[in-house]
Amino acid sequence: MAGSTFGNLFCVTTWGESHGKGLGVVVDGCPAGLPLSEDDIQPFLDRRKPGRSAYATPRSEDDRIAILSGIFEGKTTGTPISMLVMNQNQQSGDYEEMASYYRPGHADYTFEAKYGFRDYLGGGRASGRETLARVAAGAIASKLLKEMGITFTVYTKSIGEMNIDYANFDKEEILKNDLCMPDAVAAKKAGSFLEEIMKQYDSVGGIIEGIVEGLPAGLGEPVFEKLDANLAKAVMSIGAVKGVEIGDGFQSAFAFGSQNNDGFTWKNDSVRKASNHAGGILGGISDGSQIMLRAALKPTPSIAKEQQTVNKNNEEITISIQGRHDPIIVPRAVVVVEAMMTLTILDALLMNMSSTLTGIKNFYHK
Amino acid sequence: MAGSTFGNLFCVTTWGESHGKGLGVVVDGCPAGLPLSEDDIQPFLDRRKPGRSAYATPRSEDDRIAILSGIFEGKTTGTPISMLVMNQNQQSGDYEEMASYYRPGHADYTFEAKYGFRDYLGGGRASGRETLARVAAGAIASKLLKEMGITFTVYTKSIGEMNIDYANFDKEEILKNDLCMPDAVAAKKAGSFLEEIMKQYDSVGGIIEGIVEGLPAGLGEPVFEKLDANLAKAVMSIGAVKGVEIGDGFQSAFAFGSQNNDGFTWKNDSVRKASNHAGGILGGISDGSQIMLRAALKPTPSIAKEQQTVNKNNEEITISIQGRHDPIIVPRAVVVVEAMMTLTILDALLMNMSSTLTGIKNFYHK
Amino acid sequence: MAGSTFGNLFCVTTWGESHGKGLGVVVDGCPAGLPLSEDDIQPFLDRRKPGRSAYATPRSEDDRIAILSGIFEGKTTGTPISMLVMNQNQQSGDYEEMASYYRPGHADYTFEAKYGFRDYLGGGRASGRETLARVAAGAIASKLLKEMGITFTVYTKSIGEMNIDYANFDKEEILKNDLCMPDAVAAKKAGSFLEEIMKQYDSVGGIIEGIVEGLPAGLGEPVFEKLDANLAKAVMSIGAVKGVEIGDGFQSAFAFGSQNNDGFTWKNDSVRKASNHAGGILGGISDGSQIMLRAALKPTPSIAKEQQTVNKNNEEITISIQGRHDPIIVPRAVVVVEAMMTLTILDALLMNMSSTLTGIKNFYHK
Amino acid sequence: MAGSTFGNLFCVTTWGESHGKGLGVVVDGCPAGLPLSEDDIQPFLDRRKPGRSAYATPRSEDDRIAILSGIFEGKTTGTPISMLVMNQNQQSGDYEEMASYYRPGHADYTFEAKYGFRDYLGGGRASGRETLARVAAGAIASKLLKEMGITFTVYTKSIGEMNIDYANFDKEEILKNDLCMPDAVAAKKAGSFLEEIMKQYDSVGGIIEGIVEGLPAGLGEPVFEKLDANLAKAVMSIGAVKGVEIGDGFQSAFAFGSQNNDGFTWKNDSVRKASNHAGGILGGISDGSQIMLRAALKPTPSIAKEQQTVNKNNEEITISIQGRHDPIIVPRAVVVVEAMMTLTILDALLMNMSSTLTGIKNFYHK
Repeated sequence: MAGSTFGNLFCVTTWGESHGKGLGVVVDGCPAGLPLSEDDIQPFLDRRKPGRSAYATPRSEDDRIAILSGIFEGKTTGTPISMLVMNQNQQSGDYEEMASYYRPGHADYTFEAKYGFRDYLGGGRASGRETLARVAAGAIASKLLKEMGITFTVYTKSIGEMNIDYANFDKEEILKNDLCMPDAVAAKKAGSFLEEIMKQYDSVGGIIEGIVEGLPAGLGEPVFEKLDANLAKAVMSIGAVKGVEIGDGFQSAFAFGSQNNDGFTWKNDSVRKASNHAGGILGGISDGSQIMLRAALKPTPSIAKEQQTVNKNNEEITISIQGRHDPIIVPRAVVVVEAMMTLTILDALLMNMSSTLTGIKNFYHK
Repeated sequence: MAGSTFGNLFCVTTWGESHGKGLGVVVDGCPAGLPLSEDDIQPFLDRRKPGRSAYATPRSEDDRIAILSGIFEGKTTGTPISMLVMNQNQQSGDYEEMASYYRPGHADYTFEAKYGFRDYLGGGRASGRETLARVAAGAIASKLLKEMGITFTVYTKSIGEMNIDYANFDKEEILKNDLCMPDAVAAKKAGSFLEEIMKQYDSVGGIIEGIVEGLPAGLGEPVFEKLDANLAKAVMSIGAVKGVEIGDGFQSAFAFGSQNNDGFTWKNDSVRKASNHAGGILGGISDGSQIMLRAALKPTPSIAKEQQTVNKNNEEITISIQGRHDPIIVPRAVVVVEAMMTLTILDALLMNMSSTLTGIKNFYHK
Repeated sequence: MAGSTFGNLFCVTTWGESHGKGLGVVVDGCPAGLPLSEDDIQPFLDRRKPGRSAYATPRSEDDRIAILSGIFEGKTTGTPISMLVMNQNQQSGDYEEMASYYRPGHADYTFEAKYGFRDYLGGGRASGRETLARVAAGAIASKLLKEMGITFTVYTKSIGEMNIDYANFDKEEILKNDLCMPDAVAAKKAGSFLEEIMKQYDSVGGIIEGIVEGLPAGLGEPVFEKLDANLAKAVMSIGAVKGVEIGDGFQSAFAFGSQNNDGFTWKNDSVRKASNHAGGILGGISDGSQIMLRAALKPTPSIAKEQQTVNKNNEEITISIQGRHDPIIVPRAVVVVEAMMTLTILDALLMNMSSTLTGIKNFYHK
Repeated sequence: MAGSTFGNLFCVTTWGESHGKGLGVVVDGCPAGLPLSEDDIQPFLDRRKPGRSAYATPRSEDDRIAILSGIFEGKTTGTPISMLVMNQNQQSGDYEEMASYYRPGHADYTFEAKYGFRDYLGGGRASGRETLARVAAGAIASKLLKEMGITFTVYTKSIGEMNIDYANFDKEEILKNDLCMPDAVAAKKAGSFLEEIMKQYDSVGGIIEGIVEGLPAGLGEPVFEKLDANLAKAVMSIGAVKGVEIGDGFQSAFAFGSQNNDGFTWKNDSVRKASNHAGGILGGISDGSQIMLRAALKPTPSIAKEQQTVNKNNEEITISIQGRHDPIIVPRAVVVVEAMMTLTILDALLMNMSSTLTGIKNFYHK
């Protein structure tokens, strides 16, 4: 329970630091029989890699994933899948100065408070680079869920005040533009906006939205292991996320019950909801309609603009963080949010299998 | 892992249904030596009990807590503390009709989808009444944390569009007015607003805000067990909560890095933050400043206004839920949010004790 | 993780002290749809209750179980089942003297070392009475497993040097004689032996043997969650147990590979083992044959014979523990060993459901 | 919970197969500030490596450990330590025939029953080679515990009927002779005995004994997380172990209470036990005296002697397993038992830190 493991039945344990030898993940509890190779993982990693766009840091790290265990003759065996990315770009020169002070908005100060000292090279374990291990694990969950007919659409909803227009919504666009927006027009506007921000040596935040389709009703456990509670934890555990909401989320705080409730209807021989303010979850359990989640991400904390801080000698100093940093975290975090959603949903899917005696009897043919 | 247990070292397991024999909680992992009696728990339960105000359901349930184990000569022994509230008010007559259809906004449909049938009396395990067990456990955590100098201030921030004005902020007011608002003026306005809503047989949502003071820096584990991730899960696991944010939360999605970063200063011989947009958590670890959290709660789903749903015969029907129901969940949920925050913080406090070799050596005097 | 919870998916949390208000257990994760009432539980409790035989303490505690939650219209709902036994016989007078010293063979000294003080009434949480909560939970697991065709035969194998003779093995005898031996002749001899021991104010140990039949092959997880590893933990967690073995157990340490290996044969259209030295588990996973387990139990530590110890004033003293105590723990522990075995097996049965992609697809009909 | 993770606070996750790319382990929850390098780990691995002695398989695998994360400037950072051994010797030719049948005494049949197919190369995940990852993790626990004054002495007690004589006990001998026996005379006799067995193409079992010294009283949690219960699980999770006992173990089943109880005395200003039949644990909690544990290991199942089994075509066949295999598992398993003991003890040491309010207050200086 030291913090690097996620999930109850589909268990993911990550390790590694930004400027160490590498990063990796062990996936334990993956069901046997899933065809799997590095080719299933690499495209997900490529979606988060730096240097992908004009708005992301141009360090050209080529993160190649290697699977070291858990596969036999092209299929998962049911035993742990260990995956590894070796670090290529370890010039730690840029970071030496940073060792001497606490970067505002980073975990420098809190890691030192907790552990007595910190790995100051690129943020060590607190670096955003840690998330590549989550993405690799998420790629496996994603493939398995696809086999179950469950799919994910996750994208940039807004960058600062620049919002997508749902009238322009085009799912294909998400992987086409640098900002992962499903609206080409908004992406272009947001691009210009980001160029402006970069000129001011500043950064900006944004919102990621995620949709899950094909989920059966009944996933999630009552009380503490509610599906929305676990999604909230999963997504809030991403460094830059400062808020999570499901369905209408914070808007429901301003709504009337008569507006916010989703009536039930009878359609195509099954119970359906007439609307989806709830975002697909009632009482912590999936209701068979789309899951809808949003996460608020703060601006990149590393900025060249001058900032106030304290150094090792307890002197107040003014700093300007050099090197190229992304002016926005959001586009690279889209696939990380997707990964955390897939891990949560898959775990809930497996947990749900022991819900009823009838289900167990059918499983064991008794 | 069936969903009714919370916490790693301070472990809380709740049980019970709205109209069953009673509800209760087992607290395992409470350190030995804490003076504790029912008198420490009851005031917390009284804060959530129905019939407390004009805006809450007038059913006069008298929830008396009994401690059944874990205390010897007035102090906790380190073994499980079992607490119990017997249900008094079990006239299930009102609920029979409800068994015949799915109430919009409730978990009726999803429990049936998951388990094959449901306890339809008052919502069974999905009832808001389940939270009294959390509150009882939270009262213990709260007492222990107070001994450590850690205190909580949790209150209603808004009811529909009616917001508190921080200029009027008065902590004492929280326990004085029916709506748990720290602003008497806002509470009065919100009261009139609620009376209006009740006349329309409707309900409304609102926002709860919580502050933690006195927390040392260093609590929370990196990666998946981040303090904010666990707070998000804890609070989102409350039935009506649809969104959670830390510090500036969703606002930070619209901010620039230069605004959102909190600079460090040197004050009173220690490192301090000049501002607190981060809400007291950096990289998932407490930074020694105030923790600040907000939760969005949806409107009470039970409303007398007409709604569309489906009955057991798969017929579409129009219903109007009778009986008196709270037009707003928020005031009664304030103490529940507080309880979930205390449980999370205490667990993080205990988890952090094994962070460093030096700490362990000092503990065991080696 | 404070020690009072057992199981991953079928989660059992116990509470209560020997001379407190009562003892109980919360069973979370019981699948929905199992018919269940107090009548299913009480017979298991009656098997361990004191005063049942000439060789057990004559205190006439009438342990009546009450189910407080998790049942609706006679069936489990999938939510926590809380069960409670109130203590009847709380005359603590006999124990006051005991508060002044450490009883040899008991946990008096270690509880004080750990917690700073102890509940000295009847051993508090360390009392054997704690096991009734396990037995109540085990009764549920037992009923569910019986529906799956999995049955348990657990009995006294030996009392001191008095062994059963397998030639006389009669399953029905187990519940007939006071010593839970499946051999009426051995039971009679052991009875005379115990009477002798009682005259000497002494006690004696013994061995319990347990057999599981009807278990499908494939249960248990590789590496740390092996079925035998979890059985060992389950049974060793019973206070008096000092050793656990599977199949030939310690005998296999003296055997040759050619003797100890179980060859495979083809019988009735399936793979079978020609012998069962392994006790039904290979590589930590059930192999479809009988599970065979043995546990060694130490003699009752409370004896009237004189013993050496230390009192609160750090003086060495000689004591003789008064009151009637069982001269042997074994017969009352039989049902406790059975309970721990059922809990372990059921958890493994549920855990195994997510082993293969094919199984998951069939479950969700994809 | 898929079986490859061990420990609550000091969490060890292993991965890898016998003939895959490599094996490794992630240690999460190691306290910050422990000096650590590969030089601390390698000697432990060398103790279990094949080809070390005349009585072990001569395959010359050179298992070099590499630490990939969690260390900064020579010290643990508190974040996950990932360690890796790449497989050198992957000629899988010897194993092709084995794919066609179930080896008696191995997990071939049960893995297939569970997962639908198996990695038949060298046993895959069920290979004894899996234990090297445990040993690497144990080396870290061992170093940390040594800093706390807690030391381990683990050795071969018997090989078949060949027992050590405690009169000859010499701790230094353990690392000197090929059989890890603390008695040079017994080691010589056992060596001759093994040569005889090898000539008969057979194998034999044995017993490993382990002692822990310097452990403070108070470790272990009551009820299910008893120290002896967790030791039993830890050691029983090693493939070849069929029995575990603490203190007098199975002997206590034949003893009288007056013999088996350990009286208390007052010596050197503290409470001591006059004897140690209990093996250092009372009520599941360490009592400050030596922990004493024994494990029974079955004979190596791979033998050249003819055996009966079934092949893929469901035909009964006679096999003779070729290749050189250890005639005894025990000597190589000594360090594995030691590793599992260190992991269990360290976890209990960390878990115990939150036992009392006074301890927590002192820790946080409140």
